Amino acid sequence: MKIGKWLEQVRNAKPLVHHLTNYVTVNDCANITLGIGASPVMADAIEEAADIAAISSALVLNIGTLNTRTVQSMVAAGKSVNQKGIPVILDPVGVGASKFRNETAALLLNEIKLTVLRGNISEIKCMAGLEAATKGVDAAESDTANADDAGLIAKGLAKKLNCIVVISGAVDIVSDGEKICCIENGHALLGGLTGTGCMCSSLVGSFCGASPEEAFSATVAAMASMSIAGEIAYEKAGLLGNGSFHTALHDAISKLDAQTLESRAKIREG
Amino acid sequence: MKIGKWLEQVRNAKPLVHHLTNYVTVNDCANITLGIGASPVMADAIEEAADIAAISSALVLNIGTLNTRTVQSMVAAGKSVNQKGIPVILDPVGVGASKFRNETAALLLNEIKLTVLRGNISEIKCMAGLEAATKGVDAAESDTANADDAGLIAKGLAKKLNCIVVISGAVDIVSDGEKICCIENGHALLGGLTGTGCMCSSLVGSFCGASPEEAFSATVAAMASMSIAGEIAYEKAGLLGNGSFHTALHDAISKLDAQTLESRAKIREG
Amino acid sequence: MKIGKWLEQVRNAKPLVHHLTNYVTVNDCANITLGIGASPVMADAIEEAADIAAISSALVLNIGTLNTRTVQSMVAAGKSVNQKGIPVILDPVGVGASKFRNETAALLLNEIKLTVLRGNISEIKCMAGLEAATKGVDAAESDTANADDAGLIAKGLAKKLNCIVVISGAVDIVSDGEKICCIENGHALLGGLTGTGCMCSSLVGSFCGASPEEAFSATVAAMASMSIAGEIAYEKAGLLGNGSFHTALHDAISKLDAQTLESRAKIREG
Repeated sequence: MKIGKWLEQVRNAKPLVHHLTNYVTVNDCANITLGIGASPVMADAIEEAADIAAISSALVLNIGTLNTRTVQSMVAAGKSVNQKGIPVILDPVGVGASKFRNETAALLLNEIKLTVLRGNISEIKCMAGLEAATKGVDAAESDTANADDAGLIAKGLAKKLNCIVVISGAVDIVSDGEKICCIENGHALLGGLTGTGCMCSSLVGSFCGASPEEAFSATVAAMASMSIAGEIAYEKAGLLGNGSFHTALHDAISKLDAQTLESRAKIREG
Repeated sequence: MKIGKWLEQVRNAKPLVHHLTNYVTVNDCANITLGIGASPVMADAIEEAADIAAISSALVLNIGTLNTRTVQSMVAAGKSVNQKGIPVILDPVGVGASKFRNETAALLLNEIKLTVLRGNISEIKCMAGLEAATKGVDAAESDTANADDAGLIAKGLAKKLNCIVVISGAVDIVSDGEKICCIENGHALLGGLTGTGCMCSSLVGSFCGASPEEAFSATVAAMASMSIAGEIAYEKAGLLGNGSFHTALHDAISKLDAQTLESRAKIREG
Repeated sequence: MKIGKWLEQVRNAKPLVHHLTNYVTVNDCANITLGIGASPVMADAIEEAADIAAISSALVLNIGTLNTRTVQSMVAAGKSVNQKGIPVILDPVGVGASKFRNETAALLLNEIKLTVLRGNISEIKCMAGLEAATKGVDAAESDTANADDAGLIAKGLAKKLNCIVVISGAVDIVSDGEKICCIENGHALLGGLTGTGCMCSSLVGSFCGASPEEAFSATVAAMASMSIAGEIAYEKAGLLGNGSFHTALHDAISKLDAQTLESRAKIREG
């Protein structure tokens, strides 16, 4: 699978990626979006969320620190981009951890046609109506599935929702309901930083915003970019600790090129 | 005082630490919580704050950027964990700087049974009803007390509130109303980064969440961890400037082990 | 132009700088304020915004993630400092990108007497009522003006609003309606990090807060500080990538001294 061209497409198109996201990891989301070559904007007021979405190339919805005010804005922004065929990515952070998150995720699914749904295994199992443990916003250990099982879950949910489903983990899974791609890159240290999942969603938004007609391949390339950047960051700075790894992760994304992406990618198509 | 085991307990128990905190330093709070081995979650909507608190091992309340919406959620979350005996840490950021902060701090004290109250000398003097200067969210220089005076203030307030009181400063003070511990570690550069106080509260939440029956010792270990990480970060990167020191601080927390903690700790029990 | 003394004045006066700002870049704003030697505070509740403003030495208003609640607080804080003659800096982030931003910017101009208005060329053209393209929160390429044209726009708007106007860009422009200063320092990598504009506004607040009677010179020194720190950061770490550049930028601000500032500054007075 040739994925380097999707990165080049981000750098050429510089898509504007609108985020309605949480205040915990929002700075990293903005910087990773700039690092990969896109342009971030965050605007969550109901008075403008739909207007800003309408001039954007992709919309990322992330419920990490949701509240009733911003959920309304998410719906408005989602409906706005749906009318224009602009890609929408939903990151259902911590779904399963409270009734409010479950109801909000269901509302968003009901009101908005998604392009990509991206979460960890606990979140995606919850979205699929399967029994899932939850530990706040991190995947529960008891939910860790092998890649084959996760692939079937992703494929089934993608078919049901008629969108692309991504399960992030030691192996990342991407399915559109027919194909399944397993990305066997990454490093465990990514789980020791807050926001690496949110940043993946920003990258998926950036890649899909640049190549909306090729959302599946673009999503695979986005996920591979993060995982490979994690490997490079570990090699550069992983032994120094979390702070240096965090810095090196942003370095690696901003320095990533198509050739590195392709030569390092371990993508298994199923 | 053997404090290494409390760190090991965090790494083993991986407690979920719920934060209702400010949007200025929240990313550092999440990353320091992960770095020490716990798991952060931030959820401030009234619709879920109590539910998320109930599945957590500790609750950290921080009024740095309070507003009426989140204060309500803090009360709900605090009452929720009080019923279950889960530790609650209050960080009364900037109390004294406005009537609204003073009234909110009083409300939280009135509605919630605290396990630990942690602030700088200006904030703790204000909470104790003593005359205090204030300069926004930083301790006023005129409030800088010697460790003996600060110890008496902490002890008196701890007795009155029936909780542990921590005064952060050049020497950190921890008292439960009977015992007083002085932690003579740390580095002045910690005062040049935003959020080092907030991060201390996250560490206290992590340690108390892992060892709720030993909250006093756990709190001492948490405060020593931050101060010693500050020393290590200074040695590694302090001369380079604030950015490198910030990175090195996260490195030091994530790499901290029980042996380093014990061999460096300068704890005076009074 | 001797600008080193304005930096020394910040370090001596340690002004308290109140921010009502966005949640994307707020941590960088707080850390850059501390790094330059001032003290940040962020408080956006209507119940206290005016009170905190009244004890501050400068007020920074930034509409990056505005909403109706915080716009009200901005007005209250602005009126509060206007009564006391405390400097107010407005950063009209993303104005032009939505009706709500345009109306809010107009409201703030109408209700508050500004000391400094700082934005990129697209934002300042929009504020001046000129036709401007917009791409979210970044300057549109089609709006990139040469320094002479930008100088005239800044001068005209400064005269009209009776305040200092700053246009950030490859060359920074500062005008008070009579004089025009061009600061020919900086590095393109600054545009690849989120929040470098916001951080400039925090520095302008810090410098004006320390030297309110000399707001024009203080603003020039603040803008030169950021641009020169960008150059130093590039020399130290620019080739490593965005993460290392970000860290080095904070290093450079915290280590900046009057001599370095003066010897590197390329300021053209017009």
